This record gives sequence, structure tokens and C-alpha cells, in this order.
Amino acid sequence: MAEKIFRINMSDLTTSIEDVPEGWAGHGGRGLTSTIVAAEVKPTCHPLGPNNKLVIAPGLLSGTVAANSGRLSIGAKSPLTGTIKESNAGGTAAQILARAGCKAIIIEGQPADDKWYSLSLTPDSITINEETDLIGKGNFNVIETLESRLEGKPAILTIGQAGEMKMSSANISIKDPDGNLRSSGRGGLGAVMGSKKIKFISVDSKDGKVAIANPEKFKEANRVFAKTLLDHPITAGLGQYGTNVLVNIINEAGGLPTKNFTQGQFEGHESISGETMHDIIVERGGKPKHNCHAGCVIQCSQIYNDANKEKLTAGFEYESIWAMGADCCVDDLDKIAEADKIMDDIGIDTIETSVAMAVAMEGGVLEFGDGAGILRILQEDVAKGTGLGRIIGNGAGSVGRAFGLTRVPVVKNQAIPAYDPRAIKGMGITYATSTQGADHTMGYAVTANILGVGGSIDPLTKEGQIELSRNLQVATAAIDSTGMCLFIAFAALDDEKCLPALIDLLNARFGIALTGDDVVALGQSILKTERAFNVAAGFTSADDKLPEFFYSEPLPPHNAVFDFTDEEIATFWDF
Amino acid sequence: MAEKIFRINMSDLTTSIEDVPEGWAGHGGRGLTSTIVAAEVKPTCHPLGPNNKLVIAPGLLSGTVAANSGRLSIGAKSPLTGTIKESNAGGTAAQILARAGCKAIIIEGQPADDKWYSLSLTPDSITINEETDLIGKGNFNVIETLESRLEGKPAILTIGQAGEMKMSSANISIKDPDGNLRSSGRGGLGAVMGSKKIKFISVDSKDGKVAIANPEKFKEANRVFAKTLLDHPITAGLGQYGTNVLVNIINEAGGLPTKNFTQGQFEGHESISGETMHDIIVERGGKPKHNCHAGCVIQCSQIYNDANKEKLTAGFEYESIWAMGADCCVDDLDKIAEADKIMDDIGIDTIETSVAMAVAMEGGVLEFGDGAGILRILQEDVAKGTGLGRIIGNGAGSVGRAFGLTRVPVVKNQAIPAYDPRAIKGMGITYATSTQGADHTMGYAVTANILGVGGSIDPLTKEGQIELSRNLQVATAAIDSTGMCLFIAFAALDDEKCLPALIDLLNARFGIALTGDDVVALGQSILKTERAFNVAAGFTSADDKLPEFFYSEPLPPHNAVFDFTDEEIATFWDF
Repeated sequence: MAEKIFRINMSDLTTSIEDVPEGWAGHGGRGLTSTIVAAEVKPTCHPLGPNNKLVIAPGLLSGTVAANSGRLSIGAKSPLTGTIKESNAGGTAAQILARAGCKAIIIEGQPADDKWYSLSLTPDSITINEETDLIGKGNFNVIETLESRLEGKPAILTIGQAGEMKMSSANISIKDPDGNLRSSGRGGLGAVMGSKKIKFISVDSKDGKVAIANPEKFKEANRVFAKTLLDHPITAGLGQYGTNVLVNIINEAGGLPTKNFTQGQFEGHESISGETMHDIIVERGGKPKHNCHAGCVIQCSQIYNDANKEKLTAGFEYESIWAMGADCCVDDLDKIAEADKIMDDIGIDTIETSVAMAVAMEGGVLEFGDGAGILRILQEDVAKGTGLGRIIGNGAGSVGRAFGLTRVPVVKNQAIPAYDPRAIKGMGITYATSTQGADHTMGYAVTANILGVGGSIDPLTKEGQIELSRNLQVATAAIDSTGMCLFIAFAALDDEKCLPALIDLLNARFGIALTGDDVVALGQSILKTERAFNVAAGFTSADDKLPEFFYSEPLPPHNAVFDFTDEEIATFWDF
Repeated sequence: MAEKIFRINMSDLTTSIEDVPEGWAGHGGRGLTSTIVAAEVKPTCHPLGPNNKLVIAPGLLSGTVAANSGRLSIGAKSPLTGTIKESNAGGTAAQILARAGCKAIIIEGQPADDKWYSLSLTPDSITINEETDLIGKGNFNVIETLESRLEGKPAILTIGQAGEMKMSSANISIKDPDGNLRSSGRGGLGAVMGSKKIKFISVDSKDGKVAIANPEKFKEANRVFAKTLLDHPITAGLGQYGTNVLVNIINEAGGLPTKNFTQGQFEGHESISGETMHDIIVERGGKPKHNCHAGCVIQCSQIYNDANKEKLTAGFEYESIWAMGADCCVDDLDKIAEADKIMDDIGIDTIETSVAMAVAMEGGVLEFGDGAGILRILQEDVAKGTGLGRIIGNGAGSVGRAFGLTRVPVVKNQAIPAYDPRAIKGMGITYATSTQGADHTMGYAVTANILGVGGSIDPLTKEGQIELSRNLQVATAAIDSTGMCLFIAFAALDDEKCLPALIDLLNARFGIALTGDDVVALGQSILKTERAFNVAAGFTSADDKLPEFFYSEPLPPHNAVFDFTDEEIATFWDF
């Protein structure tokens, strides 16, 4: 099936299914969303106005049987950061969209009236329907209602109340194979969808299939590729304890940001660790392993049950658990799980919102450790859009501004995630230089800094960190274009068979002859496209830095500060 | 008396009285605050952190008997805009500080503990006292308490609850000769003072006097200068109706922003006009004319009484009345006066806060026209720092972000004041290019656009507007350095005797020989110093523009849009 661009104009409610422009054909996932946003969105536009566009693109390998290829990229100008943004997630949508022949969805304009809509896509149609029933409802209600309203097993992308209220931490939730949610979490893309007045998008691929130029070669490449994933010890560990295996590892390294980034270790770490969580899940009859999309061989997700053995939450990740746990000093995994579920339902980024709570605690809104207070604020304030709820729902930077605080862990207004940049300096370089604000997934220097993957660099020294972060950011931009889960990077960094097999998959899929150098060039060009957008939007190297307190406040136990000069950081872009 | 720098370090509670560095000797007022901020404050620092400095400087002519020379400049990096900031006001402080031999106060650092302090200055001493009684109190309580607590008639600079809560619209209030307040209103300088934990500053000049190099020449120059002010029709009009004479003039011109900048004329304009206000003041036994500082010959201020003939508010300006009136559609002058009084007491910028209310009305918080609702939110939310109060207290941009709105009239996050840039395009250039965010006082193009002062330029055309705004901004930077009220500009633009007399005043004061060219060069160099600070802070020409809706939404009745290209605006800096 020839791939098409599905374009929806919400100003006049018109749609079109268009041929893919030549320059976009080689792109997928993040490479494509960033290329389209850079080409069609004025960098200085208001992110919530009619001139921003929401772009949704499956990866180059999505829809095929290639292992772990089911990530969906969503891009726009971010209302949180003001930068270009791409956020990718699992779920069924990437595969179904690819099989529907959709290279990308471009949603532009904005209705003049106050009506809400939904979009329904098939391989040869786009329908815009007015929506009333589900407005004001949470994501779980949307998923449940649509499971009976819609035929088949369509992909569903939806926003909760946070997206409707255009909170700049609102995410876009994507249904997984079992009706759980995965989130395009960071950067407020749910608010952009809300600004277009779209409550949900459903996609039915009918009997669509992705064409493979060389099926035999593809099959063989996938066999080699999948084996490298299964063989890598980190990937295996992710399958056993989920991403939350990192609580003890990062705590031991002294880089677990605790009590709004005042300490690098959390006294209650054992209570919230992956090992403890695994035991609780098994004891309560949950699922310690679960895949967020068909074809995932890592299965780092899980189903976490409550004390009554009823499902409480799923896709319960290290960064969410760290943020509500160590950063807010809540050592009660059940409370964190309940908060996770509520945030999934409201449709709001768990990292941004939890870091916002910790900043609010520093501002005196709650005591550190008050998990019950967090649940109350989520339900009574954020979900209902009270003044306090809007302050929190607009992220950590918003809380800092509202309460006049200076210890606000954000870069380009996006909350710094679960790795303190003073104790894991490679991550500090990633936070400072990323084209999208502080984001661990943009260049996961934890690999060589802590995990001994792809080499080893002392996390407390500056040497080699800029080069490490640059190489990882380039590689990540390329991986994010394939539809592959970022966790393939562990194998790619350590197993010499992994990356060639991935390139073979791309070549077999499209009948082309990419080399490793081509992949590096792709990653570099994506970063430069994104950077150029940001520069045109008004960002400068003065924005490529961490908040002041990281430079002046030593972090126990290592008592390290972040000590890169602005000039050193600026060398990141020398490529 | 030799002029000195009074330096206070709030981190270690040390003080020093220092000689004036050579490079600063020729500066006063805004020129000096901007020079010091640029020299001593790291442009990327957090405005509320220990690395920002609050700088207070009387003008070059303050403390003398020169007419209208009593303006005090206060500067810092602004927590509202992130730019360099200078805000000047009347009151007694400029004259008393100058007579105390104080060239500038520099307040740096930040206490590590939670204690509050006050500063007490005399010509040869600086005392830091812990303050407890007045914490949490409004400005009128502070002034009243200090009038009995302190001896003599010291100058008083104070912050209200907004400054204590570090709201980014908090102002610094300055006592006038009769115990009323004048405000260094814009840009959140009260939050900077609050971040230094200083509730108030008192200054006693003892018997200090400003030395005049050539008293005879000074006296003669002042006679000529004052006469040009008294002779100018606009200045005379300001004395009769106050600045609020502008309501009818700007409404007639179709440039009175109404209902959150959706219309250029306000149906209820007669109810809030300067003419109506004058009649009410006279009828209720108020004062239609009042000077904000000794030596003012214009007397545009006034005392506005309530229906019971009790003083309700003073210094009741056009921009405040426009903002709470036309922009919020409140056509009840008594309600606006009450709101004005509350805002003065809380210590919050009336322009920023009222525009924030209008944006909140667009966001559905209140109905347009609900004056009682505004009063309730000011008292119950802003003064008490509730969630909604903090959203509003952090300005119009904050409200826009909190509610996900796109029609938010701010430039560099500072609210656009009382002249719609679509109908008075010269003002649009000033808002876009000013070094300090949207601020009418930075380059008051209303002169030639509307008032026929200093020539005449069609307000609806682009031609000549950039040059006009540039010339005005240069002149303003120079005037703001002298301690002169900006209203001398009307005479300076039209009466050929005015500017030479002002230069004679400066030359007679210091025994120097400035020319008109020197004054222009001074203004230019101040703008360039400020611009360089902003560029180092991360601002680019992408920030020198108006919000999108001014370019796309025609403003009735002229149905004009703002139509300068980015490239045209950028030519502003070609000097």
C-alpha cells in the first residue's frame, strides 16, 4: 500500500489524503514529525493557537513484525518548552497506522466555535465527528466507552481532562493491546490536541499490511536483531524488574534526586524499588512482565494490583516512581501507584506532575512525604482545574513561578527527570543541550556513566561526557525514527550484531542500501533540523544550561556540583 | 557632599558606603541602575535568587529645586520579563536619597534563613534591622505604622503582601509628601525586594543638601525650564484632568483596548473619563490636582474621595483606569478606585494585574464587567496568595498560560498597556522593541500619533513609526536618567527652549558642558547597555514582536491589524 499523508484542517473541518512529498519519504517517526513541524510550523507561533500543527507518525519499521518496532512519534511546537517536541510511546497505534498506509497525520488549524470533535481514520477515509458524551471524561472512561462504541480493535489516541484544559503537562494516551494506556508524556502534546478540540482519534487499518521489499532478508535480519535484544543482560533485567530496577542502582550511585533535588539518595528507596515492586506484583497476582505493543521481546511493562488483587495501574515506570517517590519523599508504593493511575486517567505527564508536586512541597503547599495530600490535589485540584490545579498541571516551572521559588529543576521549562546531573554529569549535558528541554530519553548517558554499557565513564568527572551525550543524542534521533523502542540501544551499544541487523531491517523493508554512516548522518540532520527550529523560535546558547542551584549546591553523598562552563556546553553543537 | 554608593549584602548582613567608581559618575537614575545591573548581575541568573541585585538611584537632578526632578529609578533583572528592568516613580525618596549623598543603593545576596528585615539609611550609616510586626501587612499599614515609629519625615520604600510572596507583578511603593503612595510598578521589582527579605527601606537625609556648581545659572535655567512646562497645553491639560484625560482621546482615536483587546472603543468610556472623574472629585471634596513630589509644577495626581467624601485613592492614573475599566468592561469609577486602592495596598502593579483580570475573564474566571468579582479576587485570592491569586499576581502572561489562552496581550511577558498597537502603530513598535517588555513609558509614540506633539504621524500607517519610536526611546532613556518626570517630554518636543534649559540645569549642577549631542549619545548608550544585557540573557529578535493575534485579528472600529514584518522591526536597532 502506498503511504500517504493524512491531513486534517480543524479550522474549516476539511481533510485530505495526500501523496508523500519526496523529501519526506526517507523519514519516519521523530525524523518525520520534526521535519514536518520544521517545514510547516512558524517557530514563533503560539503553541496553542491555530498555527501550530500536531503531527503523528509511526516509525519506519512500524507495522512490520520487526521486534520492538511499535513506537509512535507525536510532534508539535511544545506549549511547555516552546521548542520543537517529539514524544514517542508504545501501544497499538503505530502499527495500526502504518498498516493503514499512514505515513503521518497532520492536524492543523483550530475550530472557531467551542465544539469538540473526534477523528476516525481508515486507509482511505478521514471522518471528523462532533463529540459530546466523552467531554470532561478521563482516559479510562474514553477507552472503555469506545471499546463498546467502535467496531473491531481500532487504535485509540485520547486526551483526558488535562488536555481539554490545555495544561502544558497534558499527555496523549495511546491504548495498548490490553486496554491499558501508554503515554506520549512529555512536553504537553495533549494540550496541543486539546487546542485543536480533538478528544480522541481512532484508527482502523482494515486489512492493510505494510509492504516488505525483501521478505526473506527481513525475516533473517529480525531473527538476528531480536536475539541481540534477548541476549543483553540489561534488556533481560528490564524484563524481570521493569525499568524500576533503576531505583536501587541510581540510589547506590548517589544520583537519585530526593526531596526536590536536595539529596542523591532516598532513605526509603527499598520500599519503592523494582525488586520490592516485583515481589508485590507476584504476591498480588499481577503481571510482572507485559508488552506495551505486539512484537516487544523485552516486556518491561507490568500490571500492578492493589491489596485486593484488583488491577491498580500498568506501565508503572522508574521515572514516575522516582518522581512521586524519592523526589516527593513518598515511600509507599501503593500511594504512588494510585497517583500513577489518576495521572493516567487525567492524562498528565507523571514526571512533570510529580516533580511539580515536589516543587510545591518546597513552596509549602504540602509536607514532603504526604502521599495522601498528593492524591487529594490530583483529584480535587488538577482534575477539576482549580487555581492550584492549573499551577501544578502546567508543570514544575509553573509551580516555581507561582510560588517565587528558585530551586526549580527544569531546563527550557521541562522538569529534569530521575538522574541528578551533579552525580551523573553525562545526563546534565543531555538535559542542557537537548532540543526538547530536560529529557533523559534524548541521550541516555546513564549507559556509560552508571551501567557500563557502551564503555565506561566516571559519572562524577566532566571528561568525555559531551562527546558521549552527543553520540547518544545522534543515535537516539535515528532510533526514534525507526519506530524502535529506545531500549534496543543497550544491545546496539554492546553487541556488534545489533546495529547491522537493524540496518538490514530498514534495507529489507524499503529495498534500499543504507550504511551505518547514513544512519549517523540521519541522526545528525534531525538534531540540526530541531535546533534550527528552536533558534528561529528565539532560543540561544543561554538556554542550554541547568538551573543555577545545580552549579552552587553540592549534592550529598558525593557533594558534587555541575561544573561545566557555558563555553564547554556550547561545544556540544560542534558537528 | 560627595556622592556615595550604599551597598548592602543580605547574605551576610554586611554593609558598606563606597566611593562612586569613575565610570558611573556621569550616570544617574535609569542610566545608573542599568549600568550597575549590567556590570554586576549575571544576565542568566534567577531574578529571585541571590545573584540578582536591586539597584535604587535618584536622577542626576534629584534633590535640587529643579522642577519635576523627583523621580527615583529602581532596577534589577525582572522576574516578570527576564530582561533588565528600570521602573521609576515619584514620591519623596529620590530627593531625600540625593540629599543624603546617595548616588545609588545596591542590595545584593539573600538571607539563608526565613527572617525579614528593614533598612535604615542616613548620610553616613546603613542599619539592617530585623522586622516582624509589619510582615504580612499591606502598604498603608506600613506607612501609617512607620509614621509613628520613625522620627522626622523619612523617605519610605515598601512592599506589600505581593512582594513578600514574590509575585512577579509586585511593585515597590514610595511614600509621597502626604503619605500617599507612588509605585515603581512594572516588572515585579517588589518581588526582587521580597526575595532579599526586605520589607521596607527608610531614608533620613538629616541636613544633607545637593551641591550646585553654579547656583545662579541653575536658578535661571530652572526658571526657563519650568515656564516651558507650564506653557505647554498638554502639560496644562494633565494638571486639569490628570492622565485620565486620555480616556476620551484614545477612545475617540479607536485605540482604547476594550474587552481584552477585542475592540478599540469602550461603550462606557464617558463613565470612566477624566472629565467625569474631575467632576466627581470636585463634587466630593477631593483634590483634582496634587503633586507626587515636591517641586512638581504639573500636578497630574489627585485625591479621589468615595461617596462619603472620605479619601478612597490617590495617584489614580489613566492606565490603571483603562485597564480595570475598558479592558475589563467595568464602567463604574468607584469600583475601579476601590480596586486601585486595594492594589496599592497589596503592592501590585495596577496595569499588569488589571490586564491579567481581563485575560482571566476571557478564560471564564469572571464575566466581563464584573467589578465586584474583581474586588473579591483581589482581596480573597491575590492578597492571600491562593492558587488563583498567585496565577493573577504573576501577571497576564501567567493567566494566559494557566488557562491555555492564546489572546494574551503581553510582550516579553509584560502586559501591553492602554494603547492598542493596531490603531496606534508607533506604540506597537515601542512595545515590540523596548528593552523591558511592553511599556508605554519607554517610547510614548502617542505624542506624534495622537496628540500632535513633536510633529504628526498617522497612527494607522507604518511610515515613520520606527524612527519615531527610536527617537523617543533614546530621549526617554536620557530623561529617565535626570530624575525628571517623563511629562517634561511634551514641552521638550514642542518648545525649543525646554531641552536647552534642561541641559543648562545639568551643566550648572555639575559644572560641566554637556551638549544636545551628548544627551542623545547618553540615551543611545543606555539602550545599548540594556539590549546587551538582554541578549546575554538569551533574548533575540524573535522576542521583539507582538502576540500573534495583533497580526491577524482586525481591531474595530478601524479594523486595523499590526502589520510590521519582523525584518522591519529589527531595523529599530540600526543606530
